[in-house]
Amino acid sequence: MYNDNRLIHIDVSLKQSLQHQIRQKLVEGILAGSFAVGSRLPSSRKLANQLQVSRNTVVIVYQQLMDEGYILSRERSGIYVSDEFQKGRLNFQQRPIQTNNKLLDHKSRFKGSVATSFVKSSPTNWRNYKYPFIDGKFDSSLYPVKEWRDASNMANTTSDIAQWSELHGLEDDPMLIDEIRTKILPRRGIQSTADEILITVGNRQALHLVCMLFVDNTTTVAVEEPGYPEFRDLLKLQGATIISQNVDDKGIVVDENLDQCNIIYTTPSHQTPTSITMSLARRDELLTKAKRKDFLIIEDDFEFESNFLGQPHPALRSLDNDNRVVYISCLSKVLASGVQIGFVVADSHVISELKKIRKMILHNPPYNNQRAVAYFLSQGYYDAYMMHLHKTFFERWLTLREALNIYLPNCVDTGPIQGGTAYWITGPEQLDGEYLREKAAEIGILIEPVKHYFSTADYPENCFRMGITSIPNNRIQEGVKKLAELIHQLTEDYEENLGNAKGHLLSELELETLLPDIILECQMVYGVPCTIELCSDGNMIGHTGGKDNEDDVGRWWIKDGMYYRQWNLWGYGYIKGFHVIMDGDKMKWFDSDNRFVRELDLKNNTSKLDL
Amino acid sequence: MYNDNRLIHIDVSLKQSLQHQIRQKLVEGILAGSFAVGSRLPSSRKLANQLQVSRNTVVIVYQQLMDEGYILSRERSGIYVSDEFQKGRLNFQQRPIQTNNKLLDHKSRFKGSVATSFVKSSPTNWRNYKYPFIDGKFDSSLYPVKEWRDASNMANTTSDIAQWSELHGLEDDPMLIDEIRTKILPRRGIQSTADEILITVGNRQALHLVCMLFVDNTTTVAVEEPGYPEFRDLLKLQGATIISQNVDDKGIVVDENLDQCNIIYTTPSHQTPTSITMSLARRDELLTKAKRKDFLIIEDDFEFESNFLGQPHPALRSLDNDNRVVYISCLSKVLASGVQIGFVVADSHVISELKKIRKMILHNPPYNNQRAVAYFLSQGYYDAYMMHLHKTFFERWLTLREALNIYLPNCVDTGPIQGGTAYWITGPEQLDGEYLREKAAEIGILIEPVKHYFSTADYPENCFRMGITSIPNNRIQEGVKKLAELIHQLTEDYEENLGNAKGHLLSELELETLLPDIILECQMVYGVPCTIELCSDGNMIGHTGGKDNEDDVGRWWIKDGMYYRQWNLWGYGYIKGFHVIMDGDKMKWFDSDNRFVRELDLKNNTSKLDL
Repeated sequence: MYNDNRLIHIDVSLKQSLQHQIRQKLVEGILAGSFAVGSRLPSSRKLANQLQVSRNTVVIVYQQLMDEGYILSRERSGIYVSDEFQKGRLNFQQRPIQTNNKLLDHKSRFKGSVATSFVKSSPTNWRNYKYPFIDGKFDSSLYPVKEWRDASNMANTTSDIAQWSELHGLEDDPMLIDEIRTKILPRRGIQSTADEILITVGNRQALHLVCMLFVDNTTTVAVEEPGYPEFRDLLKLQGATIISQNVDDKGIVVDENLDQCNIIYTTPSHQTPTSITMSLARRDELLTKAKRKDFLIIEDDFEFESNFLGQPHPALRSLDNDNRVVYISCLSKVLASGVQIGFVVADSHVISELKKIRKMILHNPPYNNQRAVAYFLSQGYYDAYMMHLHKTFFERWLTLREALNIYLPNCVDTGPIQGGTAYWITGPEQLDGEYLREKAAEIGILIEPVKHYFSTADYPENCFRMGITSIPNNRIQEGVKKLAELIHQLTEDYEENLGNAKGHLLSELELETLLPDIILECQMVYGVPCTIELCSDGNMIGHTGGKDNEDDVGRWWIKDGMYYRQWNLWGYGYIKGFHVIMDGDKMKWFDSDNRFVRELDLKNNTSKLDL
Repeated sequence: MYNDNRLIHIDVSLKQSLQHQIRQKLVEGILAGSFAVGSRLPSSRKLANQLQVSRNTVVIVYQQLMDEGYILSRERSGIYVSDEFQKGRLNFQQRPIQTNNKLLDHKSRFKGSVATSFVKSSPTNWRNYKYPFIDGKFDSSLYPVKEWRDASNMANTTSDIAQWSELHGLEDDPMLIDEIRTKILPRRGIQSTADEILITVGNRQALHLVCMLFVDNTTTVAVEEPGYPEFRDLLKLQGATIISQNVDDKGIVVDENLDQCNIIYTTPSHQTPTSITMSLARRDELLTKAKRKDFLIIEDDFEFESNFLGQPHPALRSLDNDNRVVYISCLSKVLASGVQIGFVVADSHVISELKKIRKMILHNPPYNNQRAVAYFLSQGYYDAYMMHLHKTFFERWLTLREALNIYLPNCVDTGPIQGGTAYWITGPEQLDGEYLREKAAEIGILIEPVKHYFSTADYPENCFRMGITSIPNNRIQEGVKKLAELIHQLTEDYEENLGNAKGHLLSELELETLLPDIILECQMVYGVPCTIELCSDGNMIGHTGGKDNEDDVGRWWIKDGMYYRQWNLWGYGYIKGFHVIMDGDKMKWFDSDNRFVRELDLKNNTSKLDL
């Protein structure tokens, strides 16, 4: 029965415990003055009755509030609101009413705002989209809730608090430093002492501190093009001269453009935004150049955990026997988004100077989080979590690659990447990536823009990015299929089709002459070669090269003037038929909608037909 | 029985649970390779037996590690170390050895280090000192451990994490904003909307962001002298012109020096470092001037919770109907030291610009802490904690004042302060404060230096600071007594004593003629007048003015040529005797060691004796 006279209302459907709800409502009422000082509160029995909760719940809350001085009990009289909480406080009845006067022209006073790159890679409500191919956002189901809470509780015991509350602004939690030093850095090949490590509030702050120390308006810094736009902003803030250095499929290009630089900023593990991994040879080249020209290297290694193919390369800092690499990383995106723990590894003199700057502008990264992350590492939760993420993301990464290869062959190109959590996709030449993005969002597909990664307005408009951290594995295929249809729609005016294609359409007879025992050569969208052998007995053998050698078998046949094939695993095992056109040595496939699908080379037997 | 063959060792005396210890040791062994991939671990029964723990404890740990992929179980064979955790990782056997080559001259590359004020107010091992009169450090017993853990757990539920993990860098936790808006700001008389509030990593970051936005090398900023040295450093970093403006007993002086300024920085609640509270009249004067000369005011209100006498004044921002005050505060020193939550309240255009700068240099203050502090507020834990702190510190504050008055009368001066957690003490003119500090530390007393609060080398060398946040109440009296003895030793060459004092030593007969029915006037060390009436019947009545009117009664008598008195409560109720010298209208008291104690005026009856 609803009783309008009751003091407070609670909602049993809420996730918060009844005790927490009752406590919160009572405290709010007392502090806001709705339950005036000196007024009497209902007995625990009465309140419990009104709220339909056990009396014990109310007794516990009343006892807490009494211990804390919010309320007091007078013998044989009842429970009253105390005036204790008002001591030393402004009486809020007397506050003057502040007019929200916007007379001042604040903008004319702004001096320091130089941030230009506030492009949002995804809308705030990305969870409402069915196919969010975005990078860096996470399904909260991936968050290690139980483990984080356990680590957090371990950090909040009385004895732990006594330890970290004694730290001062120039110090970091020695336990966290030790965990990073012994558990994280060895995996990157880095050996370091405790005084070579600095903790920061995420890797953004690490970059800012390093810029504050090393960069002013006399400094020339090379950055990758395309590259991390937020770092360009930090450099502009310090007044640096910026050199935009191209990236090829081996990483940042090392050439004479770097000769005039004081500092090179690079993301070798998985280049931001292309996900390209810098080759070992390029790493050596860069370090040799750095030594010869005496420049500093800032190595941003924030994605080192997401290498999927082969062994990751050791960090630049681990290859540097000259101590000129300032290494920056953070503890995984997922934890980082909430807890924000980053770190810098560098020469101890650099670290001690960075500590002073850090203290000046922020005092210290929260010690409770430093200690909690230390326990998260020492209990092995971090590694277990990384294993889980790695497995999850690897699966998605392969699924996306496979889907791109099937639905957008000969149409997109991802470059030869080994890992990372996003694909950099070069679409058909005439594609307008921005327009594609708008249209895709309308049908529930989010893809990422790339313009902001470039320093100039002259950027490749047919590129976009697809991330895997946000989309469940079982939606990837469908999402890519829909996106492929959209791309075909947008580019059909420019695409070849069966009607306008150059070359000669093979008849059934010609197919029967040409295909048996032929070997076809093509390229996967992710830059790996693939051969398909069509055996005369109707069997088919497929083999891809690259780091993840993969084979499959299937069968092929000719029917109604078309070539048909069905793989065992590849192409989802679907049956698919193609019209075949020969254009010189090139064989072109068109699907049953007459749409161009793929171009292949003939490895041998080219003389079977003489066209 | 000690068994050297066992896999791991645990320590039952540690605070960590056995389960956590076993887990940590196993994970360390696996990750470090001491338990090689593929090697067999002992059965849970055997390990439990070796470690002398319940088998269930080991089973739970094994089960967790199995779920997480560290180990795997093979039927009828046993438990083995898995290779799962090595996937996608650098094989750490292959890491190159990094030589710790310090060839580079890093210092020549440093550009940005301008911090000058790294004076430590207290040594790191301050807990080893018996009388730590320092400010800002806390006994960990004061930390609200249970309540913080509860709030922290509430923030770490799956549904809460889902909420705050969706926030992006330009946002703050709306729940925390709401708590600050409705619970904290009204106490300072401030009404604001959500878009007028920004969360920062402590109040140091708030100051830095505001400087980044409003200050460059064309800006003139007035700061208090003495004042907060870290803020001067931030201004230097931005290249500002700094004007050092004096502080009197009403707060920062408002005069024509401010006319040329663009910004005034002030700490009105309790001025840093003197603890002076800015009067209401001075607040109005400052705001009027700001309007007339069109300058901005930065109000740093970080100690507003520690007002002990009377009602606190409303914040400058609440008196400002012109929206020119940028208000900065944080959630109590204690939480702040570990959790670091500060905030800015200002015009919404200013806040939105600050958010962009914040995102550029740090991304976002940790969301887990934002949400935990929100619950800490909503559950009333913060207010309960503040009540407790207020009570504790008020007690210590009064004890210290009383002790200074008793042991160092007419020798030190604290100024007329109403609160704050430190006394600014002006000692005898010849005192060398730095030397006193060194000598005091040798006998277990820590006092704070003041030099770094001044912008020039020309600072009052006889000043020092005594804080109350670190010293238990029951050590204060003893600590001040020892400090007083030290000060007397260091200044005895300059002090008057019974032997060299100017004036006439009163005989027993003269005392008996003069004292009955006389009223004596003196000044407390904390700037409050005090009258003492010596009644002819041997009773004595004491009365102090100021905001905390206080009275006491006692008795007095004359014996062996000295005046004796004993208060009921004052002076700890001790009996004390004095030699009395008249020097014109001044009466001077010397103790039984012939040491000068106090100078008094005679309110009437001065004609009783004709000297």
